[in-house]
Amino acid sequence: MEKFQVTIMPENIAVSVEKGTNLLLAASAAGISIESPCGGRGTCGKCAVRVIEGRVEVGDDTHISDDLKASGYIPACQARVMEDVAVEVPSFSRLTRHKVVLENKKTKYSKENDYFAAKKMNPICQKLHLELGNTDLADNINDLDRVKAVLATQYGIKNPNISLDVLRRLPTAIREGNWEITLTVSRVKGITEIIDVEPGKSERPLYGMAVDIGTTTVVVYLVNTTSGKVIDRAGDYNRQATYGSDVISRIIYGDENPDGMEILQEAVVGTINGLVQELLAKNGLKSSDIPVMVCAGNTVMTHLLLKVQATYLRLEPYVPCAVKFPVVKAKELNIGINPEAIIVTLPSVASYVGGDITAGVLATMLTCTDKLTLFIDVGTNGELVLGNSDWLVTCSCSAGPAFEGSGITSGMRAMDGAIDWIDIDRETLEVTCRTIGDVKPLGICGSGLIYSLAEMADAGIIDRAGKILESKVSRRIRRRDDGVEYVLVFAEESGSGQDIVITEGDVKNLLRAKGAIFAGIRTMLQQVQMDLSDIENVYIAGGFGKYINIADAIKIGLLPDLPDELFEYVGNSSIQGAVIVLLCQEALEEAEAIADKMTYLELSLGNTFMDEFVSALFIPHTDLSLFPSLKKDG
Amino acid sequence: MEKFQVTIMPENIAVSVEKGTNLLLAASAAGISIESPCGGRGTCGKCAVRVIEGRVEVGDDTHISDDLKASGYIPACQARVMEDVAVEVPSFSRLTRHKVVLENKKTKYSKENDYFAAKKMNPICQKLHLELGNTDLADNINDLDRVKAVLATQYGIKNPNISLDVLRRLPTAIREGNWEITLTVSRVKGITEIIDVEPGKSERPLYGMAVDIGTTTVVVYLVNTTSGKVIDRAGDYNRQATYGSDVISRIIYGDENPDGMEILQEAVVGTINGLVQELLAKNGLKSSDIPVMVCAGNTVMTHLLLKVQATYLRLEPYVPCAVKFPVVKAKELNIGINPEAIIVTLPSVASYVGGDITAGVLATMLTCTDKLTLFIDVGTNGELVLGNSDWLVTCSCSAGPAFEGSGITSGMRAMDGAIDWIDIDRETLEVTCRTIGDVKPLGICGSGLIYSLAEMADAGIIDRAGKILESKVSRRIRRRDDGVEYVLVFAEESGSGQDIVITEGDVKNLLRAKGAIFAGIRTMLQQVQMDLSDIENVYIAGGFGKYINIADAIKIGLLPDLPDELFEYVGNSSIQGAVIVLLCQEALEEAEAIADKMTYLELSLGNTFMDEFVSALFIPHTDLSLFPSLKKDG
Repeated sequence: MEKFQVTIMPENIAVSVEKGTNLLLAASAAGISIESPCGGRGTCGKCAVRVIEGRVEVGDDTHISDDLKASGYIPACQARVMEDVAVEVPSFSRLTRHKVVLENKKTKYSKENDYFAAKKMNPICQKLHLELGNTDLADNINDLDRVKAVLATQYGIKNPNISLDVLRRLPTAIREGNWEITLTVSRVKGITEIIDVEPGKSERPLYGMAVDIGTTTVVVYLVNTTSGKVIDRAGDYNRQATYGSDVISRIIYGDENPDGMEILQEAVVGTINGLVQELLAKNGLKSSDIPVMVCAGNTVMTHLLLKVQATYLRLEPYVPCAVKFPVVKAKELNIGINPEAIIVTLPSVASYVGGDITAGVLATMLTCTDKLTLFIDVGTNGELVLGNSDWLVTCSCSAGPAFEGSGITSGMRAMDGAIDWIDIDRETLEVTCRTIGDVKPLGICGSGLIYSLAEMADAGIIDRAGKILESKVSRRIRRRDDGVEYVLVFAEESGSGQDIVITEGDVKNLLRAKGAIFAGIRTMLQQVQMDLSDIENVYIAGGFGKYINIADAIKIGLLPDLPDELFEYVGNSSIQGAVIVLLCQEALEEAEAIADKMTYLELSLGNTFMDEFVSALFIPHTDLSLFPSLKKDG
Repeated sequence: MEKFQVTIMPENIAVSVEKGTNLLLAASAAGISIESPCGGRGTCGKCAVRVIEGRVEVGDDTHISDDLKASGYIPACQARVMEDVAVEVPSFSRLTRHKVVLENKKTKYSKENDYFAAKKMNPICQKLHLELGNTDLADNINDLDRVKAVLATQYGIKNPNISLDVLRRLPTAIREGNWEITLTVSRVKGITEIIDVEPGKSERPLYGMAVDIGTTTVVVYLVNTTSGKVIDRAGDYNRQATYGSDVISRIIYGDENPDGMEILQEAVVGTINGLVQELLAKNGLKSSDIPVMVCAGNTVMTHLLLKVQATYLRLEPYVPCAVKFPVVKAKELNIGINPEAIIVTLPSVASYVGGDITAGVLATMLTCTDKLTLFIDVGTNGELVLGNSDWLVTCSCSAGPAFEGSGITSGMRAMDGAIDWIDIDRETLEVTCRTIGDVKPLGICGSGLIYSLAEMADAGIIDRAGKILESKVSRRIRRRDDGVEYVLVFAEESGSGQDIVITEGDVKNLLRAKGAIFAGIRTMLQQVQMDLSDIENVYIAGGFGKYINIADAIKIGLLPDLPDELFEYVGNSSIQGAVIVLLCQEALEEAEAIADKMTYLELSLGNTFMDEFVSALFIPHTDLSLFPSLKKDG
């Protein structure tokens, strides 16, 4: 096969690829991740790049905006390399390192502390020091049985499993340590496994890692499991994004491409390993110091991490391969910690309610309260849990990734340059914006979109059905070929040299997203014959939740109209749940009990949800009686 | 590193090796196994080869016999390649394929049948057919839990383990089979593991393999575990022989050579895989058809199979790393069956009483009888078990490999050309020999050595202390530089062109071997305060046992003087025990109970054994009252 060189600019990184390779994969091979919400199928037009030197072949139907086309941009996924080329990847097409996914170390959102205020810490992996006593001819019992005997008498541990690798290192460790050893032992669901052996009495503290595998971002916490403290954190985009921004595109990628599943697994494992290496290097640790990793992710992410076929998750009746996964070894997944380390995954409930939600329920101790509690995680999907210590109902409401900026003309993720707050002058309809990082605006992120919708509604720019009122006189309201739009930032003030707008289409998308969530809440309540007013507590989880303004979210009908004090941001409860499992042997069984206990409501069955959804496509809702505080104001 | 070509003749197989590589390893790389009892340390002189072309470097102190040296032979292990060479490997230096290790299919020695006459067959691996029922939106439970539910209701199996590999193939198998699948499930010590999944109802019978890993030979049985029948057998020399003929040399090889343990493991796994491939090909099976292998071997062989450090087995106080080994996957050992197949090893008792002996006790159902039973396995070592359903004592009596022909001037293994029977004319002292394969004699094997000793004693060629009486007039009795010898076959009649002799030194070696066994028996009896006459049953195990003549073995004082009808040859009881474990889930626990029950008698502790040993260095013994039947005859 003929090979050509692709040079990515401005980094000037060159890679050699086979003739016909598309630029998306070529950039990925060069270590440059490009946005690709459609998974390289050429339908989203987000992977714009510019060829500086050389020639590529591009199909006709490129789905790239006319502005970009005019500036010489082409979609990377549709451009095939036919000779040596140099390609510029502009900043707006890049998946750059996510600065905001990590919570502050002193965050008030961490629920682990609450959990361990109520329950005892008892880490899943522990170091046990054993004094074995020397052998002689009259007592020449074998090494393993000697170790087992001491484990039984000293620690009450019977029938531990031992891997071949540890067994192989046992005789030397025993004698090097002069008949004293330190074992690293894991205990998962009643099964004890000897994971590591060190000679003598090891004084090194024991570490573990908790991982939140989001569709968009991956976060890793390094935990000192001796002290129970999270000592460092790292986060990055999930490299799987190159193969689709949502779980469905990724399942399709896995099914339709040869080695698709391998590629997806390598992408997420690569992301995790990058973060692991960063944390190890920063904290002066070796990979062998980490004998355990607990991962929480949605059901699809967990399947793809384990390279387990996910095909049937996206096809009716949406059947996962499994919801409780076997504990595996790090070496089975090529995760760069101790090869014998155990990898524990939080149990899922159904195809679209995953281990991240189970982890969230565990961390918020929803099952430990009598109060009727609503748990909302608005991520790429939108999962809801309703219940208390007696019962739990859950559903996934296909909100779509609009609040993550996906499918929105000027949408972007919450990173530098994203508009996260706006104010519209009620008279002039002029806009004041704030951006993350205080730089020139590049687009609008989730919280900015909620503000925009609320402000546009309040200022009368859109009506209750989301229609932009062209009758309003403003230089910012204009009609273009594909509909009416409101300009937040004109090209000359933006960081990308392009207008930042909200189109009528965008508004519809956002209404569908918020409508799905609200309809989900209502459907669950109906299922248990309760009302919005019965809710005594609302937990808002996920990176998204941290930046939204509750009052505005209520104003647009995203959140139920409840007193402010009932809402609590819980932050990344997925990773908090993972930390809890890392630090408490009983927590995994508790998580499984939670997953078993959750009644999954399939919203596509019956038509209550559809009716609710249609009613919720207004601002805030067709039934204003559901929003009494707004009526009062108005 | 400079490389040279070594061509092995007469095969004309060429391999490329690094400068300085010795010819023993070069031949091994070419797939030609050369005898090397000393493990390549240059002390045995058995690896004689002749350089036909090119130059090698050989040390001065070669320990090769003068005859061979005169004919141009050099020890392969001491010859280092310095340029391209062609080397002739003569047949007497070769480890040729062992023709006699396999028992006849209709052998009377098979104990499996006895076992299953008494106990129920319940194979360790079974195929289970599952009808899963289709899914719909109202019943979209995940694949794994659906499988588990049917396993629980239909087969009473709870909490099975499933490997990642099988989980990955589950969704496709379920749908290909239209919601019917066949699982291959193993059950070991209460733990159920799903090893394989096939779509639909599989009608293929299920197979397993039983392996006897001897220090010298490896035997594999292919078992149809559905019918319980052994359907084929294959045997070969253990390729580890290149690195030493006895377990001690191999442990030293493993300790002293870089990658020594890897090399030893690869050698035995290579031997097993060769036999596995032969059996699969002959029976039209695929490697994936074999989900289970049960291995019985002595403690050192089991350590080396698993690549577990064996150093401390040979150093006082002789501590094995383990006696009960974890069940491992075929892929962990690179064994060429289903990668997910489980490899079960029979438990050992101590460093020198291994899983082969536990297997033998299991197969002979020694623990199911009230009769005082003696179990004798004369292999490279010589292990003994004494007991009944109430108690078991065992010991290893370091008999050495003399009865396998090792350390005996003209000794050889039981293969074509080996003298296995002789008769000495009491008048003329002339000899009549019979050889295996009815070809020209090449040497003497174990049974031939027992006959020789008995005949030489009877004919008055040796006295009771094993001294060759030079006063006897015979052309066959002669004195050479290193002592007196008796010539069985003169060079002109032998297949090797060399005299076949028994020297006084050989006689001493044989007396030490038989004396150790007899002393072991006596020491065990004393331990339990019983006499030889209390023994009600004697099982003789091992390939060796099959060829010996009981009367002659009693005559030389190897076996106790008991009525002929008390002796029973049980053949390869090691592999019979492995077959039983393959076919009966409960048998592994039974074997572990047997191993736990056996009181290991350390013969080097106290001096009863040494006294007994010294008394047993006579023919038949210093105390003739122990051999009443001989006194009667004499």
